[in-house]
Amino acid sequence: MSKHIRLNAFHMNAPSHSWAGFWRHPRDRSVDHNRLDYWVDLAVTAERGLFDGVFLADVFGIYDIYGGDAGATLHEGSQSPSHDPILTVPAMAHATTHIGFGVTANLTYEHPYQFARRFSTLDHLTQGRAGWNVVTGYLDSAARGMGLAKAREHDERYAAGEDFLQAAYKLWEGSWSGSAVIRDRRPRGAYIDPAQVRKVVHEGPYYRVEGFNLAEPSPQRTPLLYQAGASGRGKAFAGTHAECVFLEGQTPAIVAQAARDIRQHAVDAGRRADDVLLYLGATVLVAPTSAEARALQEEYARYVDPVGQLVLVSGWTGIDFSRLDPDEPLQFVKSNALQSTVENLTKRAGRPITPRDMARFDQIGGRGPFIVGSPVEVADQLIEWVDQTGVDGFNLRRLVVPESLTSFVDLVVPELQSRGRYATQYAPGTLREKLFPGRGPHLPASHPGARYRYA
Amino acid sequence: MSKHIRLNAFHMNAPSHSWAGFWRHPRDRSVDHNRLDYWVDLAVTAERGLFDGVFLADVFGIYDIYGGDAGATLHEGSQSPSHDPILTVPAMAHATTHIGFGVTANLTYEHPYQFARRFSTLDHLTQGRAGWNVVTGYLDSAARGMGLAKAREHDERYAAGEDFLQAAYKLWEGSWSGSAVIRDRRPRGAYIDPAQVRKVVHEGPYYRVEGFNLAEPSPQRTPLLYQAGASGRGKAFAGTHAECVFLEGQTPAIVAQAARDIRQHAVDAGRRADDVLLYLGATVLVAPTSAEARALQEEYARYVDPVGQLVLVSGWTGIDFSRLDPDEPLQFVKSNALQSTVENLTKRAGRPITPRDMARFDQIGGRGPFIVGSPVEVADQLIEWVDQTGVDGFNLRRLVVPESLTSFVDLVVPELQSRGRYATQYAPGTLREKLFPGRGPHLPASHPGARYRYA
Repeated sequence: MSKHIRLNAFHMNAPSHSWAGFWRHPRDRSVDHNRLDYWVDLAVTAERGLFDGVFLADVFGIYDIYGGDAGATLHEGSQSPSHDPILTVPAMAHATTHIGFGVTANLTYEHPYQFARRFSTLDHLTQGRAGWNVVTGYLDSAARGMGLAKAREHDERYAAGEDFLQAAYKLWEGSWSGSAVIRDRRPRGAYIDPAQVRKVVHEGPYYRVEGFNLAEPSPQRTPLLYQAGASGRGKAFAGTHAECVFLEGQTPAIVAQAARDIRQHAVDAGRRADDVLLYLGATVLVAPTSAEARALQEEYARYVDPVGQLVLVSGWTGIDFSRLDPDEPLQFVKSNALQSTVENLTKRAGRPITPRDMARFDQIGGRGPFIVGSPVEVADQLIEWVDQTGVDGFNLRRLVVPESLTSFVDLVVPELQSRGRYATQYAPGTLREKLFPGRGPHLPASHPGARYRYA
Repeated sequence: MSKHIRLNAFHMNAPSHSWAGFWRHPRDRSVDHNRLDYWVDLAVTAERGLFDGVFLADVFGIYDIYGGDAGATLHEGSQSPSHDPILTVPAMAHATTHIGFGVTANLTYEHPYQFARRFSTLDHLTQGRAGWNVVTGYLDSAARGMGLAKAREHDERYAAGEDFLQAAYKLWEGSWSGSAVIRDRRPRGAYIDPAQVRKVVHEGPYYRVEGFNLAEPSPQRTPLLYQAGASGRGKAFAGTHAECVFLEGQTPAIVAQAARDIRQHAVDAGRRADDVLLYLGATVLVAPTSAEARALQEEYARYVDPVGQLVLVSGWTGIDFSRLDPDEPLQFVKSNALQSTVENLTKRAGRPITPRDMARFDQIGGRGPFIVGSPVEVADQLIEWVDQTGVDGFNLRRLVVPESLTSFVDLVVPELQSRGRYATQYAPGTLREKLFPGRGPHLPASHPGARYRYA
């Protein structure tokens, strides 16, 4: 039997996300991201489509590279204003039963003692459907907001991340026995057996903790861990800690290589290659017929904002694209951050890539699969990507809200199901058990967090 | 016309709250505090009773004074395990329309830049029903959890609080013009006018910020500000910043004096005496008849846990009550923290107070009005307290969940309404507009936060 394809709805608490400018589309509801109904509708639709999760990106700080300030970012609404993602989850969780929630949270400005409590609470309230997308942030604007001069350097961010995770594992896994919570309602019966709760002491290079988790153990204890490291250090970190990885990649060969790398890192860390599920970021436009899908692409393309797109690329790479000639090939721009992207886009396009290309709403401008077609055509391509690359599924990029997701659920999901390549019901249990059936709700023994387990 | 009485449901994301031990009562649902339904039911009931808000206490850290460690605290479930309150709110908000949410959050371990974004997001998602109960924390256990040696001293906590609030006001009130958000859906139209967003620079003794609020202005901008300062410094802080104050007090004379003090501090700070609403913490047991109410008190009293109660008193005062003779009068215990409480309880009881008294489920053990009776009797006493003290209403302490609140809503609210002392519908608008009708959704001009308003 071929593998079922896994899906997350990739979203953000902001007026635009992966593709800038759709908030101007007359049918788009993104301007309602400040309303709980917007989020509940999203989660209910995704759960109707048997998605694994709603995966919430986050930007803490603001992109201020394009044009040298945040002006274009604000004007285009490019991932800004950026609101706290975690507060959308409880309303979505109350309206659903199965779907999980991957919440991006930047650890750099958090403390493990406070953070462990917050995510334990989320895991309790969602009844074991909480995930944390571990990011370390890189924006100097965030550092300045927090009263610091600049963001930590790349490798130091990962070192701090290792330290943070160790402290968090100690709190989530190590401070409470599994039988500590008794709730004995007889007179003088114990709520908690104090002998089964112990202080953890963590004295790391970045974080110090002395105490036990203030929250009792939640269904999953450690929330399901997502990561999206793309650099060498990032992939090693993901291979060590992540249970789900969000990948980007322009060609099947590139994605297949990244997938192999991450799984190898997992094996090197003493885990199994399939202890990590890989979700590839993908743009999908579907309509009942191929012609209608192409027409939809043309319609949508009129709303994708080129400046808004280059605001994002500038933010990610640190290069001010407002200063570049839109039609000048990028291959000579000196930038480590840009180099592999440009090389990969060039490979895929078969010709030099320009700034204008990077803002296009098509295969070239997409940072991964860009799939347009009828349900049959879309299913063909999704299956082909999975089978060629070894990924487990996709993070579906948000386009026009909610119609792009609704169309996918209504048209593509049944097509994948009819081919035996998609689930027809949810697996039981917590988010972790749904993704890794039969292994229980907690981190597996091979995971580095498990070594801190209460003995 | 006599004033309407105002009410909040006082609650906490923990198995017990003001009165320890009710989780053992066979009809009590507190053990479900980890389930969203529990919170939604609470909010729906309180909204049915036209309450102003659900007021959520929080303890960050753990009480570890009684017996010298956290053992008794955990055993009795005395405000522990203590889970994050803010994550309960979005589910409650989605299920209700009018009721507000006062969320206790300790600023000591927060940063204004991150915190402003979170509460702006909450105010957006609740459509202007977010309140923040400003606390500074005092538990050394929290400090140790956060990797520090001990909590800040009392006066330094308030100095840091002043600094935090200034920085937060700058972000909430000063970084975005009221007309900055345009959402012009025409081609190239602006989402935000960047010329109307400006960086704030705050260089305070405790906090530094350089940036604008990452979230666009929410309906109330600054969330409704609650405070519960009881010391001289605390009352001055409340008089300066708070829009609602949560008071405790054993006799009408004590409460009346505290109410006058706080209103005088408000006037001294250039505000109006009625710019601050005062809610008095109260325990109310109601039943259809006086005899049934007394029987209910006797039944409940069997579940109030004396050790659990003394765990709380020990935590608040820093005195280990496990080392005191339960029947020895407390008047000779040297403690600033305990002194006024003991004096006031002695005044109310008309005799010396012992540790055993402080754990009693009655007038003496209550830290404020303890009212038991028929709807008529309860209404009489609530009205008498309000009219004698000048407070605006009550924070109703949680007893057996949910029946104590349901009974209050079903029995006392109609009685108060029949006397013209309770609202018969919600006022329109945001939480701030409901509490201060006709003054608009934002901080009034007389509030210190208003001086940071975008000009």
